[in-house]
Amino acid sequence: MPTILITNDDGIHAPGLAALKEALEGLGTLRVIAPDTERSAAGHAITMMHILRVLDIYRNGDLYGQAVTGTPADCVKLAISNILPKSPDLVVSGINPGPNTGTNVLYSGTVSAAMEGTIYGIPSLAVSMGSLQSKQDYQPAGKYVRKLAEQMLAKGLPKGVMLNLNVPSLPQDQIKGIRLTHQANYHYNDKYEKRLDPRGREYYWLSLEDAEVIDSSSDADAVAIAEGYASLTPLQFNLTSQEFMNDLRKWEL
Amino acid sequence: MPTILITNDDGIHAPGLAALKEALEGLGTLRVIAPDTERSAAGHAITMMHILRVLDIYRNGDLYGQAVTGTPADCVKLAISNILPKSPDLVVSGINPGPNTGTNVLYSGTVSAAMEGTIYGIPSLAVSMGSLQSKQDYQPAGKYVRKLAEQMLAKGLPKGVMLNLNVPSLPQDQIKGIRLTHQANYHYNDKYEKRLDPRGREYYWLSLEDAEVIDSSSDADAVAIAEGYASLTPLQFNLTSQEFMNDLRKWEL
Repeated sequence: MPTILITNDDGIHAPGLAALKEALEGLGTLRVIAPDTERSAAGHAITMMHILRVLDIYRNGDLYGQAVTGTPADCVKLAISNILPKSPDLVVSGINPGPNTGTNVLYSGTVSAAMEGTIYGIPSLAVSMGSLQSKQDYQPAGKYVRKLAEQMLAKGLPKGVMLNLNVPSLPQDQIKGIRLTHQANYHYNDKYEKRLDPRGREYYWLSLEDAEVIDSSSDADAVAIAEGYASLTPLQFNLTSQEFMNDLRKWEL
Repeated sequence: MPTILITNDDGIHAPGLAALKEALEGLGTLRVIAPDTERSAAGHAITMMHILRVLDIYRNGDLYGQAVTGTPADCVKLAISNILPKSPDLVVSGINPGPNTGTNVLYSGTVSAAMEGTIYGIPSLAVSMGSLQSKQDYQPAGKYVRKLAEQMLAKGLPKGVMLNLNVPSLPQDQIKGIRLTHQANYHYNDKYEKRLDPRGREYYWLSLEDAEVIDSSSDADAVAIAEGYASLTPLQFNLTSQEFMNDLRKWEL
C-alpha cells in the first residue's frame, strides 16, 4: 500500500482538506499532516528561528491527522524527516479555495507544499478551486485528483516537476474537461488600505486587488478555468532562465 | 536620477544592507525599505491576514529608511504601491550572509524580494555571500553589485527575469571573476532536533543540515562559488515545465 501525505495551507480544520482526504480514500495509507491554522500566502517560507510543535487531531474519536505549528513547507519537511515512518509515495496539497494560477503560484502555500515534496523527489500535486468560498462543492475536483493520483502513483513524475491543478467552481456536468496549460503571465495591481488604529496611528492592510491580465492565450492556466476547463500545469523548481543566458554573456562582467 | 529600492530579508539593521547602500551610493536616489526584523527563509510569503506598519528609521540624525513589519515581498509591494512617490527603476536585495544557490532560492526572502520587483516589471537583483557570518567583508560583493546595477539601469532586463548574484566570502584578489551559472540541482537532508521544553513537552527545531549535492557541473551556482567565482544566474518566475508537457499529453486526462 502506498503512503499518501495530505496537506494544505488553510489549516487542518479546512473543509477542502477533508474533501481531499475523502477523494483519495482507498488509494493508500492516508496521512494528514497540515498547519494548525490558516497559512495562506505563506509562499515557500520555512521556520528556522522558532520551534515547531506537532499535535494529534481527533475527529469523532478517531485520529484524523497531525497539526504542525508551522508553514505548509514545514509540514512536508517534518512529515518526511520525522513524523512518517518512511518517505511518502505521493504528496497532495489542497483543496485550496481560490485559484493558484499565474504569479499566485509564487505566494501560494498550497503550491509550495507540493513543491517541497518535489524537492524530496516525491510525485506531488497541488489542487485549487476557482472560487474563494471555503464551503463549496469539492467533489468534481476530487474526481480529477483521484484520477491524477492513480496515474502519478503508477507512472511517477520527472525529477524536479510537480503538477498544479485548478478546477473551476462549477457543477461536474459544466466542467468541459482538463486543459494542459502554462502559468499565465499576469499580476495584481496591489493596493494597501491606509487606516488609523484606535489610538490614531497609521497602518496598512492589503486590499482586494484586481489582476492585470497580460496573458490571454487559451492555454494559460487562468484563462482555462475562466473558460470552464480544469487547468493542469507542470511546474518546476529550477528557475533558471536559459533564454536570457546568451544575452547576458554579452554584458561586461 | 533613477530611484533604487534597497531591501533585504535580514532586517533594516543588518550590516549587509548598509554595505549594499554604500555600494550603490551616487547611482541614484537610494530608498531603504526593509523588514523591521530578520525574516530569513520567509520565501515569497506576503501578509494578508495581519496589518502592516511602517516606521521611519534614523541613523546619526538622518533618515536611513523605512522599516516594515512584514516580509521582504511585503516591503517591495508596499514600497511600490504606497511609500515611494513613483515606481523605482531598480530593486536590489541583500547583501545576504549565506549563499542563495540551488533550492535555497525557493526559501530565500532575499531572492523573493527581487522576484517581487520582477513581477512589477522592474529590473531586480538579489545578492548573497558565501559565508553565513553577519559581519564580514562585503566590499568585493559591493563592487560587482555596482557594476551590475549600472548595466541594469542602462539596459534593463527581459520581462519576467531577475538576476541572482552569489559572491564567495574571499578577499577581492582571490575572487576569480563572474561565472554565468544555472540554479544547481541539490537539496538539504533536513533534520529536526526533537527536544523537551521546561515542562517536559516535545518540540522540534530545524537543525543545521548537510546539502546532498547532485549537481557537480561547473556552471552550477553552488559549484561556481565553491571554486572561487562570483555566480550570476538569471532566474524567472514562470515555473512552467515545457519539457514535461508532451509526455503529460499522453496521460489519461
